[in-house]
Amino acid sequence: MYKIGVDAMGGDYAPKEQILGAMMAIKNIPDIEINLYGDKDIIAQYLTDSTRITVIDAKYAIPMGEKNPIQAIKTHKDSSMVVALNSLRTDESDAVVSSGATQALIAGAHILVKRMKGFKRTAIAPLLPRVSGGHTILLDSGANLSIKPEHMLQQAYFAKIYAQKMLNIEDPKVGLINIGTEDGKGREFDQEVFKLFKETDLFSFYGNVEPKVVLDPPCDILISDGFTANIVMKSVEGAAKGMGQLLKKHLTNSLSGKIGALFASKSLKEFKKELSAEEIGGAIIFGLYKPVIKAQGASKAYGFYNGIRQAANVCREKVFETVKEYLDTQKDFEDE
Amino acid sequence: MYKIGVDAMGGDYAPKEQILGAMMAIKNIPDIEINLYGDKDIIAQYLTDSTRITVIDAKYAIPMGEKNPIQAIKTHKDSSMVVALNSLRTDESDAVVSSGATQALIAGAHILVKRMKGFKRTAIAPLLPRVSGGHTILLDSGANLSIKPEHMLQQAYFAKIYAQKMLNIEDPKVGLINIGTEDGKGREFDQEVFKLFKETDLFSFYGNVEPKVVLDPPCDILISDGFTANIVMKSVEGAAKGMGQLLKKHLTNSLSGKIGALFASKSLKEFKKELSAEEIGGAIIFGLYKPVIKAQGASKAYGFYNGIRQAANVCREKVFETVKEYLDTQKDFEDE
Repeated sequence: MYKIGVDAMGGDYAPKEQILGAMMAIKNIPDIEINLYGDKDIIAQYLTDSTRITVIDAKYAIPMGEKNPIQAIKTHKDSSMVVALNSLRTDESDAVVSSGATQALIAGAHILVKRMKGFKRTAIAPLLPRVSGGHTILLDSGANLSIKPEHMLQQAYFAKIYAQKMLNIEDPKVGLINIGTEDGKGREFDQEVFKLFKETDLFSFYGNVEPKVVLDPPCDILISDGFTANIVMKSVEGAAKGMGQLLKKHLTNSLSGKIGALFASKSLKEFKKELSAEEIGGAIIFGLYKPVIKAQGASKAYGFYNGIRQAANVCREKVFETVKEYLDTQKDFEDE
Repeated sequence: MYKIGVDAMGGDYAPKEQILGAMMAIKNIPDIEINLYGDKDIIAQYLTDSTRITVIDAKYAIPMGEKNPIQAIKTHKDSSMVVALNSLRTDESDAVVSSGATQALIAGAHILVKRMKGFKRTAIAPLLPRVSGGHTILLDSGANLSIKPEHMLQQAYFAKIYAQKMLNIEDPKVGLINIGTEDGKGREFDQEVFKLFKETDLFSFYGNVEPKVVLDPPCDILISDGFTANIVMKSVEGAAKGMGQLLKKHLTNSLSGKIGALFASKSLKEFKKELSAEEIGGAIIFGLYKPVIKAQGASKAYGFYNGIRQAANVCREKVFETVKEYLDTQKDFEDE
């Protein structure tokens, strides 16, 4: 049994959707137990089936728009997020899932969960859908706005192991997000990273990749600094949302469009599902001692369930254990 | 009559589509003449109607993937791009349109076309479609990978005038592209720009805007440095392309989907048209003495025609003259 810690109070629709998602996960994933961290009186209103679910009382919910995440984490020891993260240290949980405020979760993970030995900068890595099927790992999606090239090397390496274990890709290719495909493109920083990646034996480096192929890149991992990759993720999200609205507008503009939409409704629903953040599930934080999954803030039950499923998969596939073993054998990654 | 200089040899489908686009423009825009710069023997093969079109021989075509744009511009004085850009200085043309290599065009513009007096850093500004109709100006889409906050202030100001004159927006709002909407978000650079924009009287500053609303932002102008805004543009392009492919896949997966697509084909075509780079037309370079329009490298005739139409509009609306007048009255913008 893998013990998944769930922050029940974080998220735009918390705690209702988080609790429904947890019950859905218990129903569908036989080898997990869930620790549900949150206000037990409120949880009691929504928890209709407590099979393999333990409720741990944690009254405070860190607000979604928390302006001072570090202070929030340090002040609110009784918050569902802090108590959930602390459960990793005590081995009460094997992994934690939260759809709470991203920056607070990152700050909390840094303060309360140890880094993996030798790992310098954690990274957040969501999965992007691919037109040709499967997923692309995108990182760092917001943990480190500025970073050194050698830290990005470690992150890319972690992503490689993740891709091997979780996405079953034997030799994952790493692509550097850039404004052109030629060698030497981009800022000074990108040029340094390019040089370092070109020389490394730690993973296969594809080269520079432009975001105009972001949904079908010639590589399995797309990497940049935490500002740039976050901008890519949010631009894709914005374009997808905007296109969905435009499509709807055009289809409802004419009678034949309406009839067509009726016939095609199943296909259009599948299309929407494939692109929804709900379906993609959570982003994983690389480089911590144990897995922390950030589910989308706007997660409904199904999206949150997918985050729990991802956490269970990471445990089952022993992703973190494998990275630890690799790191131990790599003198490049020794602690400073 | 406005004299539009056309680089006939630059572009993935040059010179055929550029020549067809020029003839289309002559047919549809009564107050323009066109100077067509390129190999006159090759042009002769495609130019079936030379009404108000003058062909100026320029044999060399700078390749689309030109690795050393500055050297290419300096070496190839006989290239269609260089001869076209030089025509601005001699008043042979009032504006230039090219779908040639972006970096070469930017380098050429810097070397051969004077900057507007007092304008420190040029910027490229494409128009993004809006879900709610109209367009958003995006800049700097690739001219300056790193830039000072005070130069971005000038660029935002130019964009404001452009939005007033070309998009008929009385009081355009400027939004700073960022990874969060709260004050103080982003890199140190973004925080400095935010402070400067907040204090200025030159334009209305909306605040930070996340790219997840890129196709329907709460502002008329979206601005960042040349690396970030280029990443946004390419991510939107990539997401739009990927979504189109996904939609097609889903619609052709089932019989009802196919029937639906048949009924909705007009709506789907309009949808595709609205999102195509062809329709959006060219990106304008801000800060030069005269307008240079960069049409998409992959422009077909219609897309290139739209670039010419945009150039004619900029001339007709006296956008550059107005900015010059404003700049003359603004001591903030005095030359160093």
